Amino acid sequence: MIKVGIIGGSGYTAGELLRIIQNHPNAQVDFVYSTTNAGKPITTVHQDLFGETDLVFTDTINPEVNVVFLCLGHGQSIDFLSQNAFASHTRIIDLGNDFRLNKDAVWQHKNFVYGLPELNKAKIKNAQFVANPGCFATAIQLALLPLAIHNTLQNELHINATTGSTGAGVKPSATGHHSYRNNNMSHYKAFNHQHIGEITESLQKAQSTFNQPLLFIPNRGDFTRGIFATLYTKVNQDLDTILKWYQDYYKNEPFTHVTTEPIHLKQVVQTNKCIISLEKHGDYLLITSIIDNLVKGASGQAIQNMNLMFGLPENTGLNLKSGNF
Amino acid sequence: MIKVGIIGGSGYTAGELLRIIQNHPNAQVDFVYSTTNAGKPITTVHQDLFGETDLVFTDTINPEVNVVFLCLGHGQSIDFLSQNAFASHTRIIDLGNDFRLNKDAVWQHKNFVYGLPELNKAKIKNAQFVANPGCFATAIQLALLPLAIHNTLQNELHINATTGSTGAGVKPSATGHHSYRNNNMSHYKAFNHQHIGEITESLQKAQSTFNQPLLFIPNRGDFTRGIFATLYTKVNQDLDTILKWYQDYYKNEPFTHVTTEPIHLKQVVQTNKCIISLEKHGDYLLITSIIDNLVKGASGQAIQNMNLMFGLPENTGLNLKSGNF
Amino acid sequence: MIKVGIIGGSGYTAGELLRIIQNHPNAQVDFVYSTTNAGKPITTVHQDLFGETDLVFTDTINPEVNVVFLCLGHGQSIDFLSQNAFASHTRIIDLGNDFRLNKDAVWQHKNFVYGLPELNKAKIKNAQFVANPGCFATAIQLALLPLAIHNTLQNELHINATTGSTGAGVKPSATGHHSYRNNNMSHYKAFNHQHIGEITESLQKAQSTFNQPLLFIPNRGDFTRGIFATLYTKVNQDLDTILKWYQDYYKNEPFTHVTTEPIHLKQVVQTNKCIISLEKHGDYLLITSIIDNLVKGASGQAIQNMNLMFGLPENTGLNLKSGNF
Amino acid sequence: MIKVGIIGGSGYTAGELLRIIQNHPNAQVDFVYSTTNAGKPITTVHQDLFGETDLVFTDTINPEVNVVFLCLGHGQSIDFLSQNAFASHTRIIDLGNDFRLNKDAVWQHKNFVYGLPELNKAKIKNAQFVANPGCFATAIQLALLPLAIHNTLQNELHINATTGSTGAGVKPSATGHHSYRNNNMSHYKAFNHQHIGEITESLQKAQSTFNQPLLFIPNRGDFTRGIFATLYTKVNQDLDTILKWYQDYYKNEPFTHVTTEPIHLKQVVQTNKCIISLEKHGDYLLITSIIDNLVKGASGQAIQNMNLMFGLPENTGLNLKSGNF
Repeated sequence: MIKVGIIGGSGYTAGELLRIIQNHPNAQVDFVYSTTNAGKPITTVHQDLFGETDLVFTDTINPEVNVVFLCLGHGQSIDFLSQNAFASHTRIIDLGNDFRLNKDAVWQHKNFVYGLPELNKAKIKNAQFVANPGCFATAIQLALLPLAIHNTLQNELHINATTGSTGAGVKPSATGHHSYRNNNMSHYKAFNHQHIGEITESLQKAQSTFNQPLLFIPNRGDFTRGIFATLYTKVNQDLDTILKWYQDYYKNEPFTHVTTEPIHLKQVVQTNKCIISLEKHGDYLLITSIIDNLVKGASGQAIQNMNLMFGLPENTGLNLKSGNF
Repeated sequence: MIKVGIIGGSGYTAGELLRIIQNHPNAQVDFVYSTTNAGKPITTVHQDLFGETDLVFTDTINPEVNVVFLCLGHGQSIDFLSQNAFASHTRIIDLGNDFRLNKDAVWQHKNFVYGLPELNKAKIKNAQFVANPGCFATAIQLALLPLAIHNTLQNELHINATTGSTGAGVKPSATGHHSYRNNNMSHYKAFNHQHIGEITESLQKAQSTFNQPLLFIPNRGDFTRGIFATLYTKVNQDLDTILKWYQDYYKNEPFTHVTTEPIHLKQVVQTNKCIISLEKHGDYLLITSIIDNLVKGASGQAIQNMNLMFGLPENTGLNLKSGNF
Repeated sequence: MIKVGIIGGSGYTAGELLRIIQNHPNAQVDFVYSTTNAGKPITTVHQDLFGETDLVFTDTINPEVNVVFLCLGHGQSIDFLSQNAFASHTRIIDLGNDFRLNKDAVWQHKNFVYGLPELNKAKIKNAQFVANPGCFATAIQLALLPLAIHNTLQNELHINATTGSTGAGVKPSATGHHSYRNNNMSHYKAFNHQHIGEITESLQKAQSTFNQPLLFIPNRGDFTRGIFATLYTKVNQDLDTILKWYQDYYKNEPFTHVTTEPIHLKQVVQTNKCIISLEKHGDYLLITSIIDNLVKGASGQAIQNMNLMFGLPENTGLNLKSGNF
Repeated sequence: MIKVGIIGGSGYTAGELLRIIQNHPNAQVDFVYSTTNAGKPITTVHQDLFGETDLVFTDTINPEVNVVFLCLGHGQSIDFLSQNAFASHTRIIDLGNDFRLNKDAVWQHKNFVYGLPELNKAKIKNAQFVANPGCFATAIQLALLPLAIHNTLQNELHINATTGSTGAGVKPSATGHHSYRNNNMSHYKAFNHQHIGEITESLQKAQSTFNQPLLFIPNRGDFTRGIFATLYTKVNQDLDTILKWYQDYYKNEPFTHVTTEPIHLKQVVQTNKCIISLEKHGDYLLITSIIDNLVKGASGQAIQNMNLMFGLPENTGLNLKSGNF
């Protein structure tokens, strides 16, 4: 049984980890660290777990756990690891963005592997430290990797993606207020989102010549969960050829599926799946990519990485009932 | 032209006042007082007014305005009036709950009239100071007053009402977070809501013998605007008799309408209307009452009171396009 | 491995059964019967299952399956069973309302047990035919049964419950239109809902003297899943005594949990759980009961019944990740 | 007083016309034609108008009205006009797409002017027949016209726009079902939407050399009202220059406003406004354009056209309270 420690236990990604581990046959939570809620039952914060667990938040870590998930605000993982030591065997999976980029991946003799299983599975299996990808970054990379490995990304990439309110975290804010967000839409960080860096690096791993701009508009949707991304770029090949590339690339992937039918976001909500739909319009290939930002875009993928790191079947504990409605 | 001052200009009720006054033919905003936003255009907060106004928040009041609307947190109106004096002619309409109850209605030689036009129209016309009713209190009183004046409230009153997220104000909070509120429902202050007091007093004005408990469960709905209230109590009379009571009571009221057809909340959203539907089930009369909590439940009713106080037709500036969708 | 047949495979409850069985370790779908969609992959209708199954709708039944779930419109189960015969060993679980009432429970030598595990567990274990309870009926009975077995239901029962749009089925309709339902609320069948019958019969099983009216207002909420029910009645005992009754009644139930803390609907959405919260206000006991109408209120409970009927642990395949957001 | 006839009175755009005309000082509804609802009060369909009107649907037209609004399904206006004659003075405003394109604009001696006031104001003032623009077409043209008149549209146009569920009409459908649409997102007719034609023609009027493709992805949002459109294209000029172009172009327009601040959809919902926000990112100009699809995108703009055709101030009856929440 894998003993799990969770750091930053009050946030959305920690809650989603707890929900998944609750039914994971090979893992159990050893401690949930939260300085603000230490001493309280975790169900005071993650109230949906009422009846399922008696866990209590703690402000003391157990340095001997098998794996630690860091569910901290971006930039805070380094601080935490600087101040807290774990056993030499303890694996660490960071859900923040501190170690995702090449320049950040090695820190104090820790070598973080970028944890996108569809790109780095072999490395993840042998990794002790994993940097879990960003949510937008996951949806976008999965949409583009099969093109990249065929050196087909030779033109500008046009990306529009809308995320649910859980993407902005648990802290109440003006743009997270229900009165604002309900029936509303807006964009933010257009052309400048921080995930462009990790996406670009992954595409360069797959296609070393890649040097195209990612023209990316992230939107705030009025749903709670999910990322709905549309991407298009000029590609010479016909749809059949491209479809085969995608099917081949993902043929052994349990969670990523390809279609040429129309798709809608709620096909993947509450699951670890990514569904990719392909259409060809003249020279343009239109790719639609959907994930649940908290599952495949965060905590589900983190568990997928944990499974790989511990030699378990990748989908252990991750065959989740789709929400659909 | 009525010169208007608004105190507490950053909140939801202030914003709704500004939207209504913007198109009111006989009133114009003189100043919008906000200590936190002084110096900023009001469109930085009430962004939907962009293109319609150049008003700027101020931290200086003009004591000579014709009317002041107090849009402060409950309990703060007394503080504000203690520290700020207005001209002897200035009328004051308080949207908080400081002066609604009989025991609070006279304060420092100011005599506040309870501003429910359907109950107190003659008094409001002659009032200098008005206490605007609470939102739940408005929906519930309008549902019950025609029974009260026929001395028919002789049994327990069962009330269930659901309010939108704007009812809880602009300040971000855990239960106002979109991730929490979307597709969710909960109740709060069951049997103990602070509006029970003003409702009871109004019913006693209409039916001096009234002494029944109000068994009232307020719910948080996942919509943004509106109150959907169902009420039932034992009443001997048949539906035709009761319907006639309601129609008579509201026959000269421009905003309150009665039906025996099913109704739904969005019939009144964005308007100053209240629609009341009546059904008889055995001994029980079921009353459904719907309002927009920010309009008839707050700022629209405040303008209705202003119109009455200044001798204008009651509906001036208040024939608002229904939202419906 | 339990071989499962599903009749009426295009509807919401069939879809939810398919989602749950997909990950059930001891059951697998043998056929999904739909006359309107025969020949099409089930993922053309239940699109969220894309990537997980290759099942195709059929218009031919396999009469030898171990269990059949009837997911037909109310009143259609009898028609179907009249025209289609199954093996003598085949168990039948009807999700409609054809066999729920005492007067309907025996039909052509088939004796249907009312399938509320918290009430009838022993009988269900030995049943060949089960009538799965209605969604409102489930939430309401679980809220009241511990009182009934203590003969405490001696006064009128006041019930207000709001359901999501999936409660009205897959067929498009005016009141199911997003433009209507979004940010809206309404009630229907007040005091006359068809579930009152089955609730009353269950309460009479638990408290033979029970003869109180159920004053029940069902509401249409603007969420998609879930039932949020509040109930109150006069009860003499204090909260501690009552809490203990509930805790004792549900102490061996894996899905039904009791608290005195405030609760909100999304604590149970996507799960087979029911959470009940108790408050005492003067003489009144206020009970809040929440379920997911498609899971504990329909398909999850149907699987729970199947587990019991086949001697499996009750929660097999039903430890579902909560949706929460 | 302008006498108004409305054809196709049961639909969303007819309802919105009725709401606006209800408070229009210079127009009143003479008849509302609906073959399916003839004889019923219009409040049986447009229930939010309860208490405001006693109008009854009719299946008889009054051919002498001053103006007729055609609110029919696309393609049905020609059928209707073929079978029904109006007085020679009667003005006709078609909200469908039958007469929007150059090739369709002249029909049986009727010359339809394309009714986008910001493009064709002078012609509309003198028109007897007006083809009201499409909703997406309105949001997109207003975003691009100031560039076109400076001959600046020299590169591909990238457009992503999300519309509310009212955009798909009143008829219940699978993709309009609340259970589907709530918390969901999808796209349709990518690169092929029917509004591309009218947009292209308008841009060519403004910039005769215009020959760029409109790469347009329309999305179904889970809100009810509004269009949120983002557009970008390469433009050489700096933001100050471009901002001035937009401000100049719209300086006399009462409803279209320009900013460089972030905007969100609900700033314009329930109003006839369009707000355009400009950002420059490297060579790319990013334009965000927001309207209410039923108001500026349909019925509000139709009234704006009526006002112009009858010599009224353009904003008569159209200073609508913003919904905002």
